[in-house]
Order: sequence, then structure tokens, then C-alpha cells
Amino acid sequence: MSASRVRARDLGIPFSGTPGPLNAITDVAGVEVGHATLSWGEGRLEVGKGPVRTGVTAVFPRGRADPRLAFGGSFVLSGTGELTGLAYLEERGFVEGPVMITNSHSIGVVRDASIQWMLQHGWDFDATIPIVGETYDGFFNDINGGHIRKEHVWQALDASRPGVVHEGNVGGGTGMMCYEFKGGIGTSSRRLSDPEGGYTVGALVQANYGSRAQLRIAGITVGRSLTQDMPCYTDPALRPELSRYGVCGGSPVSGAKECRDGSIIIVLATDAPLLPHQLNRLAKRPALAIGRLGGVAASWSGDIFIAFSTANADAGKSDEAVAKACQVTLYPNRALTPLFEAAIDATEEAIVNAMVAAETCTGANGLRLSALPHVRVQEILRAHRLLSI
Amino acid sequence: MSASRVRARDLGIPFSGTPGPLNAITDVAGVEVGHATLSWGEGRLEVGKGPVRTGVTAVFPRGRADPRLAFGGSFVLSGTGELTGLAYLEERGFVEGPVMITNSHSIGVVRDASIQWMLQHGWDFDATIPIVGETYDGFFNDINGGHIRKEHVWQALDASRPGVVHEGNVGGGTGMMCYEFKGGIGTSSRRLSDPEGGYTVGALVQANYGSRAQLRIAGITVGRSLTQDMPCYTDPALRPELSRYGVCGGSPVSGAKECRDGSIIIVLATDAPLLPHQLNRLAKRPALAIGRLGGVAASWSGDIFIAFSTANADAGKSDEAVAKACQVTLYPNRALTPLFEAAIDATEEAIVNAMVAAETCTGANGLRLSALPHVRVQEILRAHRLLSI
Amino acid sequence: MSASRVRARDLGIPFSGTPGPLNAITDVAGVEVGHATLSWGEGRLEVGKGPVRTGVTAVFPRGRADPRLAFGGSFVLSGTGELTGLAYLEERGFVEGPVMITNSHSIGVVRDASIQWMLQHGWDFDATIPIVGETYDGFFNDINGGHIRKEHVWQALDASRPGVVHEGNVGGGTGMMCYEFKGGIGTSSRRLSDPEGGYTVGALVQANYGSRAQLRIAGITVGRSLTQDMPCYTDPALRPELSRYGVCGGSPVSGAKECRDGSIIIVLATDAPLLPHQLNRLAKRPALAIGRLGGVAASWSGDIFIAFSTANADAGKSDEAVAKACQVTLYPNRALTPLFEAAIDATEEAIVNAMVAAETCTGANGLRLSALPHVRVQEILRAHRLLSI
Amino acid sequence: MSASRVRARDLGIPFSGTPGPLNAITDVAGVEVGHATLSWGEGRLEVGKGPVRTGVTAVFPRGRADPRLAFGGSFVLSGTGELTGLAYLEERGFVEGPVMITNSHSIGVVRDASIQWMLQHGWDFDATIPIVGETYDGFFNDINGGHIRKEHVWQALDASRPGVVHEGNVGGGTGMMCYEFKGGIGTSSRRLSDPEGGYTVGALVQANYGSRAQLRIAGITVGRSLTQDMPCYTDPALRPELSRYGVCGGSPVSGAKECRDGSIIIVLATDAPLLPHQLNRLAKRPALAIGRLGGVAASWSGDIFIAFSTANADAGKSDEAVAKACQVTLYPNRALTPLFEAAIDATEEAIVNAMVAAETCTGANGLRLSALPHVRVQEILRAHRLLSI
Repeated sequence: MSASRVRARDLGIPFSGTPGPLNAITDVAGVEVGHATLSWGEGRLEVGKGPVRTGVTAVFPRGRADPRLAFGGSFVLSGTGELTGLAYLEERGFVEGPVMITNSHSIGVVRDASIQWMLQHGWDFDATIPIVGETYDGFFNDINGGHIRKEHVWQALDASRPGVVHEGNVGGGTGMMCYEFKGGIGTSSRRLSDPEGGYTVGALVQANYGSRAQLRIAGITVGRSLTQDMPCYTDPALRPELSRYGVCGGSPVSGAKECRDGSIIIVLATDAPLLPHQLNRLAKRPALAIGRLGGVAASWSGDIFIAFSTANADAGKSDEAVAKACQVTLYPNRALTPLFEAAIDATEEAIVNAMVAAETCTGANGLRLSALPHVRVQEILRAHRLLSI
Repeated sequence: MSASRVRARDLGIPFSGTPGPLNAITDVAGVEVGHATLSWGEGRLEVGKGPVRTGVTAVFPRGRADPRLAFGGSFVLSGTGELTGLAYLEERGFVEGPVMITNSHSIGVVRDASIQWMLQHGWDFDATIPIVGETYDGFFNDINGGHIRKEHVWQALDASRPGVVHEGNVGGGTGMMCYEFKGGIGTSSRRLSDPEGGYTVGALVQANYGSRAQLRIAGITVGRSLTQDMPCYTDPALRPELSRYGVCGGSPVSGAKECRDGSIIIVLATDAPLLPHQLNRLAKRPALAIGRLGGVAASWSGDIFIAFSTANADAGKSDEAVAKACQVTLYPNRALTPLFEAAIDATEEAIVNAMVAAETCTGANGLRLSALPHVRVQEILRAHRLLSI
Repeated sequence: MSASRVRARDLGIPFSGTPGPLNAITDVAGVEVGHATLSWGEGRLEVGKGPVRTGVTAVFPRGRADPRLAFGGSFVLSGTGELTGLAYLEERGFVEGPVMITNSHSIGVVRDASIQWMLQHGWDFDATIPIVGETYDGFFNDINGGHIRKEHVWQALDASRPGVVHEGNVGGGTGMMCYEFKGGIGTSSRRLSDPEGGYTVGALVQANYGSRAQLRIAGITVGRSLTQDMPCYTDPALRPELSRYGVCGGSPVSGAKECRDGSIIIVLATDAPLLPHQLNRLAKRPALAIGRLGGVAASWSGDIFIAFSTANADAGKSDEAVAKACQVTLYPNRALTPLFEAAIDATEEAIVNAMVAAETCTGANGLRLSALPHVRVQEILRAHRLLSI
Repeated sequence: MSASRVRARDLGIPFSGTPGPLNAITDVAGVEVGHATLSWGEGRLEVGKGPVRTGVTAVFPRGRADPRLAFGGSFVLSGTGELTGLAYLEERGFVEGPVMITNSHSIGVVRDASIQWMLQHGWDFDATIPIVGETYDGFFNDINGGHIRKEHVWQALDASRPGVVHEGNVGGGTGMMCYEFKGGIGTSSRRLSDPEGGYTVGALVQANYGSRAQLRIAGITVGRSLTQDMPCYTDPALRPELSRYGVCGGSPVSGAKECRDGSIIIVLATDAPLLPHQLNRLAKRPALAIGRLGGVAASWSGDIFIAFSTANADAGKSDEAVAKACQVTLYPNRALTPLFEAAIDATEEAIVNAMVAAETCTGANGLRLSALPHVRVQEILRAHRLLSI
């Protein structure tokens, strides 16, 4: 996906706050993102054969060449999902290695392969507890086929770069659905004014949640008007039976209540020198962005958020074998509010960016997920005098 | 405050979902609400003399005549505030007695007086741990004057009634400020459709948070246009010095960053038979309503939420001296999503109701907090083709 | 209670680790402790008249003349009790003002009076959220009589001193029961070796938990042998009816299951430079000390622990009105283990010290709580070849 | 390992409480346990070749033929480890599928293979979030060699049985070290008296923590006397270099501070009808057992506990596609204390059972971990008049 792709604010969708130069999590200096995208096969799902619409996304706090720890925090808005390493993060206060995102049934291979990558690259951790989050693409992808293998994980890790972040149907977001449109990966950033410290907050999301009717963009309940383009099976003969648990196995998919559950993994990065207990606070704020967009953190949704700070770059030295105290910078609690607002603004835009970037795609069993209709959204916002262009 | 008072939806402000008959927390059968309002004095603040603009609000899950326990849960979105009894609630899973709300420095007297009231009324608890939440009105009220006394607490308890709930400058909300307008008490409810179970979710808020520029109503960033009617000191000579901690002591008040911090206490009630771990989940959802309204859960904000269920009315028998197991109804996790949405919808409207009901008021040191200008809000929404009337 | 009083290790009871010079929480430089003890009346309990056996204990992290904040953390082992201010502590990471301990129904007055004391002494906090913990003495004290008043709270605050800490039937511990002996306040400390950093960890407990049969001292199940000296009503005519909830209202008291529930508040202090997330970890370790002593954290027990660090003395400047980042020292996670062990050792000894210091006392309704029989404990330990003298 | 193997109480080590017939977690009807043990190779560690000393242990709440959910709860005493599925468990309140335990770097493969096993066996979960815990055996086993594969995971699952549970160097415990003796798997149970309800609590541990000097058995600090039999390299030429992070890479192993960190995973089962919030409470109590044994929950220790109830067997029906409320039994909070005590007693004995059962073993790089010397322990306890035989 090229950097010339249209993004949400290019469509005139209004957002609050001032983004960084790339309007991406990589505006936080040091952060690198890499994707491995798996997409092949068509037609009826056969476990082990496909179709495959999935992938892996890696977010390195300090880039793939820098194993130094980063202070981190987390929040679980709705825990019917998985993000490994949460207990370790809370206990140590450090993110160690990259934050990985994939599908629900590949957490294991991504986790183990990440350890192997770090060992291979001389990241001298004897007992690493990786952070790997997931959202579920099993309605669209042969999730039980074991298609993501060590090489794909390493591919995402090795592909990590600063700069432009690909969005939409890439990496871990390849097979995701958001508000019953095609979803996926999105990113955005906010830069505080100089009097507020000039810090940057970036967000990267893997968005796979929401029912159509809930969708709000720019505060407008656009989803109620966007009744077309619902998920559908292009060939009725390929329509699967509704499973016992009914997760998006029906037709139309939206007939299953669970479709609106989904999940979202959100990664926040900042260069402001927050300590772990402050990053736990920051990690709560994406919930408010989901609120703005009409999300409800549905019962079966795994909405788990990670926040890290790239400041205090040498704080991890305190965790080396020769334990030595070190000096770190403490950010004033009173100055957190602008960072909170930046995190909410960036998350809101990152989710809309994911939807704007994602393209119509047909997956397992001929299920077609439509792209957000850009022009139609513009029309609705324009009718409400909200389009900024 | 009469039931004929205008409320947010009377102004044509659009909201999602279907309210109950009263559009109040008291739509949940059994719930009773009572207020004690203290308002006297004018001019310069003298500790112990006034001016006084404060009060106490009581919410009884089963009414003031029924001491039976109610399953409960809680969530702290931002903990720079106080709501007593949280550990006890988590441990037992029961709300015992009323949920009380007051100002920050009267938690103690409200707590102790509530115990005395329960003892007096034969609520046979030897060691009650009351639930008392607070928001700060010290910029507007002689918070250190000790004006709330046992009799006021009992007055709120004794005044508790089903039916219409007074909103705005009443009870614990008397001295509160919301988005730099006059804030206070608000309430709303949602009723699920019959296929969804027909349950009701009610919300009651004591709203005291937000900076003007953040305010969003019906998704529109109205606060940016509502630049008039900022908090101001009517007599410059009465303007207090900015305190060391700067909490709203400056002039204009909004000059102090902290003004936008504030706090909000939210009480959710439902007749759906949720167990404690499910009520913890429900209690997280008001965060999404705050997101809709542009709130950021500021750093110095005490945003603490309580949820209880009036179902399983005899579950508390299991906690009596002769310990006996009892049967309770378990609500399906899969059916929680409509309740979550109802909680968000009801909270959003309750906060706007608080602002619509609150009236312009001048408090300590001549600080004037203006009412939300109804007509101006209608104009803005109408310009965006969002007014429902 | 004089400094010459016998303490647990004077009896030859063996403990691990090396205590500081005073073997008290005040071995952590700066920490000051003060008590107000209320003890009057005899005979049948009449609410409002007595008998009174209760009090207040204050622990100042930096002494009563120094309002600077201290990094803090907490843990709730069993939450069927109250300690106010927990959400605030978690959110800010700071203990503000003294940590107070009292009886269950005086939390309110102690809380409000503490705020008033701080205001009176120019501790310039506009919106303080005090930390006040409680354990229940209502079986022994006229807990509903409202005897603790503002002046007693101030007395405890003003009495705070470094140096020797009075133990046993003093302050908040005046009416407490531990393992069905007389309980109360106890303290102890440990000093790490110089290679480990030479830091000190101090513990202060208000111990009011446990059934006799559970008591283990020095690992020996002494409680099973100490079947004498059970709580008893000295005059059968004064024996109260068992209340509905049965909290220690029967005779023999131990007939009520709930007697073994009780509660314990534990305050840990250290001069090691721990950050808030590390103090949360430290605050968990007293649970292991309770394990050593045979405690089970009973269902109705409010076992709540606070830990603070006196290091990073100026970190609180970051929380002043003019928000400024500051440098703080980060303690290596790898070096925490000796502090954890010190916290466990100090807590264990503090609890035994509370029991050793407490003296036989008769309270409300003629209930007599016996002191731990020193000689008998020595005999048992000697028989097991465990007495160190 | 045969059922005739000696266990801790056979040696005369005293414990509190009454065990069930097998003194094992399988005394809770329905619970099944299976192990897969991998043990081959000798000499210098070569990644991918060995030596291999590791495995997998499975605990099915209702046996491997019954996919019904079980109410569950959890507690993290020290989170520097991993147990997947914690957020999901907290959110739903249900344990779904078996609880698995393995080494730190095989969590991924065990997780993914468990999903495959459940799918293969028609456990109709589309999106399972398995519970997999770990402790670290990398000092003793080729942990990075990828030796545990899908077939070993399935072997443990398929081997699950009621009845006698093998202890010591088996399953996930094959390569573990406890108090610097050989550690591994241990189990025990307690049965409440009939007046207390007659319920059973079972514990199964994978014990891999503690430094020698900390070890307390029957309350006696036996570790201080057991200075022989320290971990050692049988061939100095095979001694590895101390790694940067120093995790047990030195010689003597105990020279590295980190050796005493380790970890312990504890699984509690009960047939008492506890709800999820009550199982969270139960899951905290093993901390007190670790306290009895002198453990300190060291800084680098991953001490994570799971508790489930086999009662309310059909509660999971509420989570099926057709969401239906169901009736469940609520256990009285007041009756929890005996269950708490049973959990502590069973955990304590399970850990000692693990050490008593584990046999001297030489692993990677010739590291020898010695078995607890039974006779020597008996001698010490006899000297303290504590041996029950």
C-alpha cells in the first residue's frame, strides 16, 4: 500500500488536535512498524488449505536494532481476547522487545518465533515474555490452518521500519472487519504544542469490532445511513452453517449478533517521559476514542491497549544482571491531560484511517467485506456541514 | 425542581436508544433517589461561614425501606478522587445500603451519618462499609466549612423516593461545574426491547468535569462555539488568589488548567440479573459515554462508576449469619452487549440532562457559573441538521 | 507504654533478618508515629456512653512538619474492610499526608479531621484525599457512640514523633483482638546488608484478626496448645445477644465463626527509592508474613496494606501547580527481593510484637480479652527447641 | 512414578487439615490430570539438540471428555512470568478447556496445539483463549530447542485421567528446581467437615522457586541446615558462562541471586459452588501457603494462581449461541473461610509433595539438582519434636 493512498483527513473528515509529520505512530522517534501479509486462495474454507487472509504486525518501541527496554503500561477495556505478557508488563513496568499483533489462533507461533528472533539477534534475554495481541479473523481466514509460521513472524520483524506505516488490509489486519466494513491496521499521531512540552503521542490499531448501526464518524451516526455494503456471501452455495457459537458464520453475517463484538488491539507510543503507573493511565484513554466512534466494547470483544514511552532510554539498565539504580525523569501528573487528549484524538483517527485504507476483499467461503464508501461518507458529513474540504 | 422542567431531549438534542417512562434511574423498579441541598450566603468565602453551595444525594438500590443487598460492581476510569467502599464491594460482590454522593471534604460525615441512619432504621449491619463518592466544589462552595452535617445526610436519605428525579443544582450536584458551565445531577434510562429481555438500565451522574473546548453534544464540538458564558468573578475585588495548587482559583477560572479536570461520579442501575463480575463489566461502559461527549478523563479527574442490579433480590440472604447457599440467576455473557449500549446511551443523556437542568448560579467569591445556553445549543445543532425538533 | 516493655524477641522468639536500631517503622528516617488512645467506662454497652476502648494512630512518611509527598503503593489481600484513598494513590503514585488507622465507624471523622489538620498547618492541599484504614472493635468498644472526635484525631497527629513506637493497646489498636488474644498496634523493621544497599524496611500493624487455633509463632502451631485465655464475658448477665450478623456477639465469643475473621491494616515504609509500581509489589509481601503466622485472610477480613518510600523526597514537586518534570531514582527490579524478604520479616515480627505488648483488658459488656501468655509461649517454643534464649 | 511412592506425610511431616482419599487435586470429582515428559540427552547444551528435561501438564476441570465450562478466578502474586488467558477468564468468569503448564518458551506451541486438540475433539469453540502457564527450566533444559511439539501437548491431554497424580520430575515439572533442590509437580487436597459442607479443595503446583536458605518445612527453617546438595555442575568443563542476565548460569548455580527467583504456577480446584468473584478470592490464598514455606515471591518470580469450581456444571450453557439465563448456586461469603484455609493447607502440602517426589537429576551442561534429602529433613523435624511418626 503506497504512501500516496488517501487517508481519513484527506477525505475531509474532521479531527481534533495536530498530527505529527507522518500522522503515524512512527512520528514518535525510534518506533518502527513491520507487517507480514498472508493472502492466498479462494472459495470454500478447507482447514490447512485456505483461503488465507491474515498476517502479523510488529511494533518496535526503539526500532529492531535497539533491544533497550521501554517503560510501559496497559489497560483491558474488554478482556474477551488475549494479549500475552500483561502480568509481566505490570510487574516490571517495562516493554521488552516488540509488540506483536496477529490472529487469535496464531498467538502461540508468533510468541515463540519472536523469542527465537530476539535470541538470534543477540537480544540477550534468557526468559522473555513477549507481548502478542490478537483479534479474530476466523470468519474470513483459515484461522485453524496454521498458515502463519516462524518465517512470517520473522518477516514482519525484519520488515520493521520507521516512516510511513501501511494501513488497511496488511499485516495482522489483513482479515479484519470493522463496523461490518473491511477493517485492519490504522495509525495516527498527535503533537503537543511547545508550551505543553512538544511531545508526540502515536497510535496504531488493529480494528476488528463494531456493528454497522453503531458507527459514528465525526460524531455523526453515519452507520445508520450506510445500510448497503453489508458483509455477504458472494456464492450462496459457499455459505457456511452457523456454528454453535455463531461467530459470524451466518448469512448475512450481520445476522449473527456476535458480528458486532469483534475486538481491537491498540498500541500507544509517546516520547513523553511517563513512568509505568502513568502509562497505565494513558493506556485507558483509547476507550474514550472508541466511545466517540460509537463503539460499545461489546461483550465478546477483546479490547486491550498497550502504551509505552521511548523516553528514559537507559532505564532498562537497572534491570541488567548487575543491578544498579539509575536516574529517570518523572513527568508531572498535572501535565498528563494534554497527553490523554492526544491519545484519544490519535486513536480516533487511527481507527478511521484503518477503515478508509482497507479495500473491499473476498475471503473464506466467498465472504465479501466491503470497503468504507468514501464518497458516501463525505456526502453524509457534508450534509451535516462537517466536511472540512 | 418540577417534573415539567425541560430536559435535553425536549430541546431536540438527539440520543440513541429508548428511554424508560421517566427517563431516569428510577425507571429501574425499586430505585429511590433523595437530595439534600445546601445553598446560602454570598460574597467572599469565609471558612465556616460560607457561601455554601453543596449537598448530598442518596441512591437506594431497593428503596429506603428495603435493606436487602444488591449485587454490584465498579470501575475507576480516573482515580484522582474518592469513592469509599470499593474494596468491600469487589470482595463481597454486594452493594450494602445506599450509594451516596457529596463534596470532597464531606465524605467523612456522610459516611458516618449513613451508618448511623442504617443503625437507626434497624438495618442490622454491625460493620457497614458505606459507598460514598465525591466531586470537588471548593472553587464555589465553602468546602472546608463543615456545613454538611448529620441532619443533612439524613435529610437526603429520608427524602429518597421513586419517581421523578430532580436534576441540576440539587443534592451533591449543587456546587458543580461541567465543561465550565453549571453542572450537577442528571439522570436518564434505557429500556431494552422485549426480544433483548426488556430490561432497564438507568444512570445517575454528579457531573463536575471538562473544559469548555472539549464539549461535544450529539457528536458536534459545540464547546468550541460556546465561547461566551465562561465562569467569571462578578466582582473583581472578590477574586481569590490562585492557590499553590491552582485548582480553579484564578480569574478567569478557565485560566487554570485544572478547571478542566473536575470529576464525575456515575451510578448505574439495572434490573437485569447480572452477577458481580458482569457488573464490573457494565461499570466500565460509562467511559465510552464520556468519550462521546468529548471528555478526556483528565489527570486530576476522579471518574468513578458504580453499577448494581436489583435482580436476585434475595441473594443477600447468603450473607446472613446463618450462611446458606441460594439460587441466583446468571445472565448470559452473550446478551450483555445491549445492556452495555444502554448504559452508554443512558450515561450520555444523563450528563447532558445535568447540564440542561442546571441553572446559572453565583457562589463563593462571586464566582458565576452559567447555565448551558439552550437556544444557542439548539442553533448549533440545527445548523448541523441534527436537531430532532 | 514505656520503651522498656518486653518485645517478642526479648522473649526469645526467633525471627529472620536484622532489625534496625529501634526495631520499629521509625527506623526509616523521617517516619513519625502518633497515637490517641480512648479508654473509659465499664459494663454494659450503651451507645453514646461506652465503654470506650478505641483510638487513632497516625503514621507520617516524612514527619508531621514535612508535607512533601511520598511515592506509594497498596495491596488488598482481603477487601472486606476499608482504607480510603486507594484509587487516588494508585492514580497519582503518591501518599499525601499521614496514613491514619482507627475503628470501622470512625473513618469519616478521622478523614475529615485530617483534612482540617492539614489545612490548619498550611499543608496547601485544596482537595486532599486522606488515607484512613480501619479494623472493627465493635465487640469491645462502643463503636457507634461517636466517641472519636476531631480533637482526638488532632491529638494523634500532634503526638507524632520519631523514635520508640508504643505498641499493644494504644491508638487505633486499643480495642483490637488478634488470634482471640488482645491485639493492637505492633511494629518492627529490617535493615538490608550494605552490599544489598543498606536500606531499611519498617512495618506497623493494627492487628485484629485470626482464630486461636490458627496461631503459629516461629512456625509452631502454638494456638492449638493455648486453649486457655479465650475471650469471655466476665459477667454472664452482661453477655449481649448474638446479633443477626453474629460478629463476635456471642459467648464464648469464639463461638461465632466470624471472630476469626477480623482484619489487619499494615503500613510499610522504606528508604529504598522505589517507584509506585514497585511499591505495589512491596505492598503484596505482608501476605506472606500472615501466612507464616497461620493467618488465612478470612472471608470477613479487611487486610489492606500500604507501602511508601521516603526516598525521592522532592518527587512531589512534579505535582505542584507549575508542573515541572523532575529526576527520580529508579530502583533495580532485580534488587527488590531482599526488600521483599525484609518486608515479610518485619511484618511477621510486628504482628507478634503487637500481641506481646498488648495487655489483658476488659471492654464493653464485660468482655475480657487476655494477653498472650508470654511464659506459656516460651515453654512451647522451648519444647520445640526454638527459643533463642 | 508409581502410586507407592513416598509422599510428604508418609515421612511424618505434619500438615493441617484433612486430605481427601488421594490427597490430590483429583479428589475433586471430575478433575483429570495428564503429563507428557520429555527427558533425553546429556552433557553440553546445544540449542536444538538438548539435553532435554521438560514437559507439559494438563489439568481438565471436568475431564477430557467434558467440554463444559467451569467458573474460574485468578491471582497474580508476582507477575514476572506468564499465564495466558487471564483477561478472558476475568471477563467471562469461565475456564474453557484444560489448564496447561509447561516451560517458558513453549507457551506458544502448547497454546496453539491445545486449540487444535479441542477442535479435533469437537469442542465447538471457534475462538478459544487457552490458559497456559509456565515456569523457566532454561538453566537445566534446552529451552530454546523447540523440543515440545504438538504431539507432546496432545500426549499430555490424551493421558489425562482421574485418580493418582504423578508428582516430581514429570510433565511441566520435569526440569524445575525448588529451593535449589529438584522441584516439579506436586498435589494435595483437603476435605471440609460435613458441617462445613463437605466440600473438597485440591491443589496442583509446578514448583520452581525459592533459595535454599528460605526453605521452611513444618514451620522450621530447615533450609539453613540443609547446606549440602546444592545445585552443581558435575563437570567443571561444562559449566556455562554467566549470561548477561545471570539467570542461573553461574557455578555454583546458587551464586546467581536470580536462582532464588524462579516461579510457581498453582491450580486450585473445588466442588464448592463458588462464583467467579469468589474464586478470585480463593485464588489469592496460595500466597499464604508460600509464606508458610518461607517463600518470598521474589522479584523475578512468576507466581500465578488459577482457581476453578466444578459445581454449577451447566452454567456454561448461558454462554452458548442461544443466550439463555440459567440458575446457579451462590455460595455464602461467610462460609468461604474454611475453603480458604483448605486452599492454603493443600497448597502447602502440594509444594512439599513436589519436593519429596522429585528425584536427583542431571540436566543440561551437567547441572545436577539434588532431591530433597528425606532422612535429613526427618532428622531436623524430629529434633524439633515435630515429626508425626
